[in-house]
Amino acid sequence: MKNADYSALAAQFGTPLYIYDFDEIGQRYTALKSQFGAHKSLICYAVKANSNLSILKLLASLGAGFDCVSINEVKRAVLAGAKPYKIIFSGVGKSDDEIKTALEIGILMLNIESGAELERVEAVAKSLGKKANISIRINPNIDAKTHPYISTGLSENKFGVVIERARELYLKAHKSEYLEPVGCHFHIGSQLIDITPIHEAAVIVSDFVSELAAAGVELKFFDVGGGIGVRYDDESEPDLYTYAQGILAALKGKEMTIVCEPGRYIVANAGELLTKVLYEKVNGTKRFVIVDAAMNDLIRPSLYEAYHKVVALNAKNSDKTSKTDVVGPICESGDFLAKDIALPSQNSGDLLLIKSAGAYGFSMSSNYNSRLRAAEIAIENGKARLIRARESFEDLIRLEKGLI
Amino acid sequence: MKNADYSALAAQFGTPLYIYDFDEIGQRYTALKSQFGAHKSLICYAVKANSNLSILKLLASLGAGFDCVSINEVKRAVLAGAKPYKIIFSGVGKSDDEIKTALEIGILMLNIESGAELERVEAVAKSLGKKANISIRINPNIDAKTHPYISTGLSENKFGVVIERARELYLKAHKSEYLEPVGCHFHIGSQLIDITPIHEAAVIVSDFVSELAAAGVELKFFDVGGGIGVRYDDESEPDLYTYAQGILAALKGKEMTIVCEPGRYIVANAGELLTKVLYEKVNGTKRFVIVDAAMNDLIRPSLYEAYHKVVALNAKNSDKTSKTDVVGPICESGDFLAKDIALPSQNSGDLLLIKSAGAYGFSMSSNYNSRLRAAEIAIENGKARLIRARESFEDLIRLEKGLI
Repeated sequence: MKNADYSALAAQFGTPLYIYDFDEIGQRYTALKSQFGAHKSLICYAVKANSNLSILKLLASLGAGFDCVSINEVKRAVLAGAKPYKIIFSGVGKSDDEIKTALEIGILMLNIESGAELERVEAVAKSLGKKANISIRINPNIDAKTHPYISTGLSENKFGVVIERARELYLKAHKSEYLEPVGCHFHIGSQLIDITPIHEAAVIVSDFVSELAAAGVELKFFDVGGGIGVRYDDESEPDLYTYAQGILAALKGKEMTIVCEPGRYIVANAGELLTKVLYEKVNGTKRFVIVDAAMNDLIRPSLYEAYHKVVALNAKNSDKTSKTDVVGPICESGDFLAKDIALPSQNSGDLLLIKSAGAYGFSMSSNYNSRLRAAEIAIENGKARLIRARESFEDLIRLEKGLI
Repeated sequence: MKNADYSALAAQFGTPLYIYDFDEIGQRYTALKSQFGAHKSLICYAVKANSNLSILKLLASLGAGFDCVSINEVKRAVLAGAKPYKIIFSGVGKSDDEIKTALEIGILMLNIESGAELERVEAVAKSLGKKANISIRINPNIDAKTHPYISTGLSENKFGVVIERARELYLKAHKSEYLEPVGCHFHIGSQLIDITPIHEAAVIVSDFVSELAAAGVELKFFDVGGGIGVRYDDESEPDLYTYAQGILAALKGKEMTIVCEPGRYIVANAGELLTKVLYEKVNGTKRFVIVDAAMNDLIRPSLYEAYHKVVALNAKNSDKTSKTDVVGPICESGDFLAKDIALPSQNSGDLLLIKSAGAYGFSMSSNYNSRLRAAEIAIENGKARLIRARESFEDLIRLEKGLI
């Protein structure tokens, strides 16, 4: 982060520490929003990437909408000041209670992922005497060419419905007294460096929208999901202009509101994980730098074999480097943050910075090994501010201690 | 679980729900403990497998010791009634604060994992004017033939030190005014179905202990780590008698106290995860059963490609089955609990039981997708008792809400 005094931050807030650049988050949001120019658009931040209330509040203040995948994400967004009519609720497994609460709050739309879910939403809407605004997630059977765990557009995935099924469901919803089809939705995968598959999917879904219109089902929202890749290593981030133009072209003049659901794109590179070196050791010919952050803080390297750049903060350019693994204190070999990277010699107390940690970092963190989850801070106009307090032992046992 | 009324449990405690058979946990502990007969032994339960305070209390009441890998695990054990002189503190990344607290509590020993750590422990002990009981974790360079993430005995792992280095460290500790070498330790991996590698390692380390004794370093504790495999599918669990006899044989008459650190062995098959079916759907030719438990509740299938048996509770034997994936509501394809298993048709509200979920289930769980962590219950003498309350939205935002 520009001009950040990491030693001072470590001293004030402790380590491991998640640090977010709020100016960068705002710039990323604005850069994407502006690409659609005069065409109506709604950028719905994907809360699952990083659900910290202060980040949601920042984005809400800029006019963002929110893509939520659980009712608690919806509640977080509302608490952070989001307008209900800018909230989308997605996900393959919404419970009746979640659907009920979403309808009571009066969100923009529920993204429907299966025929069974459509029936549940209709039943719940009926019980409330309301009409539920829905979109249907269409699975366009397009290979997003990303990690299998975050590829979601092939028909063998659990997400959405194939186009033939979507047609049936839209016609059914159109006839229902309690359902109002207002949008269509697709999301073919995350961290896409090549965005061509998004444009291919957009064309397929846009043509389908025309077909629905001919059948009397007029949709207002064209939701292209998320998936814009970011630079973790030396990837080229997709060009936003090209991204937007491809979507506009696919619409072929339709005046639908374009909805995007960026998560990683907004926060990944605005976040860093600051960690302190505990020990350095050599086993046989293998070097390890053991730090105070671990897989419970950032599981991406272990779960997705994801790469995160590591910066040695106390190093001078002239320092000799050698290959090392950067690992945490957790008792399994899967606990690593980086493998075989070049790093200068480290002493106990030196600081390392794990880059690109703003997305799917804290939000996936756990208490494995009874480790306390890290604190989170925002850097705003050059000033640091705590946005989530570090957990305490008391937090760890709060729900157990009265029960022994 | 024998005679459990799962429908009643789901109605009373909600789903997803972790259920532990406390009688089974006690039996498992006793079965292992008894194998060592008249030979002195200490069974130190590996807290990281499942750190629920009520489970620790049960084991403490049976006389168990505890193997801890963070100071919070030590604190949990103490809170649950463990005797400090039965607590071991292991792990590659102990901080100065953690070492200090462990010495103040007066635990049995610290397992040292590197030369740098030995120096830190000595320095901290000196600052407290105490003598620290230590053992050194020896990495015997033996292939445990298990999943790479839980294999820990090869020299390319971050754990322990090679035997030549261990010799130097023992001699150094022996001379120190603030260190007392009392034990040796190895742990070559988890979930070992073939325990021969443990016996091989025991022979290597036992010979090393004889050599140290000749050099004047007398050790009292022979810690063979954990790693006893359990049945997830159709594996044969290692025979406990053979396991114990191999260790006794390796000792060659030494009167050292044998220390074992079982975690998974004690709790894995005493635990089940009860989950409710939300939807069933078919995408193309692929069938999915979507349940209310997800990878945030049980990450083993996703992280280790681990197999967990799934039982359809509402099914009759005569029901026709077909292949399906059992998946959670989380928005990524990595969110699955079982793949390509045979299951009868499921309706919304039907219950499924994920077996062998007592170890590395709740302890690795997270709030990903802002999902609330499950409740945990104990079944004891046929009675169900809450041992950890289900999280609430309030718990989720407790450390953030005052900071927006």
